Amino acid sequence: MSTLSSIFDAVTPLSYGFDKDIRLKIDNKTKPPGALGQLETLARQMANVQCELKGEFVELEVISPTIMVFAADHGVAVHGVSIAPQAVTEQMVHNFLAGGAAINCFCFANDVRLKVVDCGVIEPITSDNDNFVVSRMGAGTKDFSVEPAMSRGQVEAAISQGAALAFAELSQGTNVMGFGEMGIGNTSSASAILAALTDMPVNEAVGLGTGINHDQLFVKQQLVQQALSRIEGATESPLVVLQQLGGFEIAHMVGAMLACASEKKLILVDGFISSVAALVAVKLKPQVRDYMVFCHASAEKAHEKVMQILEAQPLLKLEMRLGEGTGCALAIPLLRAAAAFYNDMATFESAQVLL
Amino acid sequence: MSTLSSIFDAVTPLSYGFDKDIRLKIDNKTKPPGALGQLETLARQMANVQCELKGEFVELEVISPTIMVFAADHGVAVHGVSIAPQAVTEQMVHNFLAGGAAINCFCFANDVRLKVVDCGVIEPITSDNDNFVVSRMGAGTKDFSVEPAMSRGQVEAAISQGAALAFAELSQGTNVMGFGEMGIGNTSSASAILAALTDMPVNEAVGLGTGINHDQLFVKQQLVQQALSRIEGATESPLVVLQQLGGFEIAHMVGAMLACASEKKLILVDGFISSVAALVAVKLKPQVRDYMVFCHASAEKAHEKVMQILEAQPLLKLEMRLGEGTGCALAIPLLRAAAAFYNDMATFESAQVLL
Repeated sequence: MSTLSSIFDAVTPLSYGFDKDIRLKIDNKTKPPGALGQLETLARQMANVQCELKGEFVELEVISPTIMVFAADHGVAVHGVSIAPQAVTEQMVHNFLAGGAAINCFCFANDVRLKVVDCGVIEPITSDNDNFVVSRMGAGTKDFSVEPAMSRGQVEAAISQGAALAFAELSQGTNVMGFGEMGIGNTSSASAILAALTDMPVNEAVGLGTGINHDQLFVKQQLVQQALSRIEGATESPLVVLQQLGGFEIAHMVGAMLACASEKKLILVDGFISSVAALVAVKLKPQVRDYMVFCHASAEKAHEKVMQILEAQPLLKLEMRLGEGTGCALAIPLLRAAAAFYNDMATFESAQVLL
Repeated sequence: MSTLSSIFDAVTPLSYGFDKDIRLKIDNKTKPPGALGQLETLARQMANVQCELKGEFVELEVISPTIMVFAADHGVAVHGVSIAPQAVTEQMVHNFLAGGAAINCFCFANDVRLKVVDCGVIEPITSDNDNFVVSRMGAGTKDFSVEPAMSRGQVEAAISQGAALAFAELSQGTNVMGFGEMGIGNTSSASAILAALTDMPVNEAVGLGTGINHDQLFVKQQLVQQALSRIEGATESPLVVLQQLGGFEIAHMVGAMLACASEKKLILVDGFISSVAALVAVKLKPQVRDYMVFCHASAEKAHEKVMQILEAQPLLKLEMRLGEGTGCALAIPLLRAAAAFYNDMATFESAQVLL
């Protein structure tokens, strides 16, 4: 297993060495300048990432895109801060493995590979499904409102394991990796991390998740406030915040994102929880931001703030609030479309169009 | 060729007879209620359309989706109200036929069929491309700022021909039809139609198109104002407005949309010009609205107003301003994803998930 410092050190920024030529190439396509909007921004980013690996005249490619869904339980869920009981984490993992969840349907529709990782669901999942991976850090985190969600050893192991799992996927040729999650209680964890890392007021950072009522929202905000008081003065280190406020699946995502960046592969970020993992990764290593594509503007209200902090404009705004990597799966056709116009669209000269 | 009244009469509203069961089916899927946001709305509309034809227990299908790009020239273009000279209409049609335009790339990437129709480009297009159709109403419309863009005969013929072309595509099994356009000057025409049909102030209805400067914008607004003064008192009839303010391609789209609705097939509406055609179709026959899916929120400022009038929420908001049907081509994977979750996602019962 890699040490954390070796994982962090392996991330280098994009050079943007071909950016001028890339922009010229996009501007010479047969369309008014900028007329493809966000798809031009996307193609430019994809080209900057892929040219750096393969040289200026590379064709953009979306190779064997893969979504990793990291699942884990959260101690804080005992307080009933979700619409669903904690057992639903395990039930939904079985649903993923049986092919019955939304993410399965979207991956199938868009020809995307899916991996499901048990990072620490209460009851260990057993399955001989080829797409299932065990990377357990325990039987759920501890309740972050009263004690650290994880030990220092657990958070470091979760990041390292997340990186190792991503490296394994990338070694098979995948060049676009999406990140999803499942874990009852994990919007509480993500909201707490967000509030701790950004000084965002608790009532802004904590939202309705998948649809809790206002009493539950009040409890959720109280728990996050309690946790912030507990760790007051210790929020400078993203690693400490992650350890304290938890999420085995969030820590895995952080490691996996760092791994993708270190190999200069595109990172697809899904909704709120995935974006908070992205925020932690960027706080740990700012250069990782260059490789991130934000796929969906979550209906969770604090997500917009996270996007502002990360200077991100998500590709899709479909009012979804599901997680599982669903936004990533739905965005992959936009990456393919961006690659298609970048590679194959005529220039004014080649098409004899005189704009 | 069908008479206009026979085309109008053939459009009947959706019954929504299965809507309650459709909503129940969607709500029983393994996700919090509403968590798939606009995809749920889309699946519900698709199901209401397709169940009406085939019964309650139909699997949703996206069969041989086709985008028709209608191209024509506009007399008003002599005033230089576009960033491009009028000859670009013809050049871009050749680009479509050679496979080099954005719409070609997006159709290829998303496995969508493309038809290109010459509805009245200045110089007739000749091509033996199988995807090319000739349906010329003349060598461009007349300048609507000083005279009617079309004769009554031309507007009726354009609508009928548009319907006939759509019927021909539908007869091959296509059940989702998208509408794009190409025509230098056609945002002027669409803006004029919009202002005439809605009493929207000219400075709100007329925008920057694909990127004109402020002097051009002033001229464009003056021309539209002049046209509105010319036809003052004659804006009650959508047919008269369409005839006066033109667009052979817009009139074709109106007819083709009516044809799709009469066969209860989904209509994919693209950006500003396509949406103004949709508005005309709805003004002529309100029931056609039931079959329309709005694909992309155009960067043209008046588009948002059109969406409000049509009570539409576009699926994509990518800041594009290109036309050609590009928004439709990019939205088709979302229809496939909606069908996939509607057909294949597990229920709470089947997956033993106890939310």
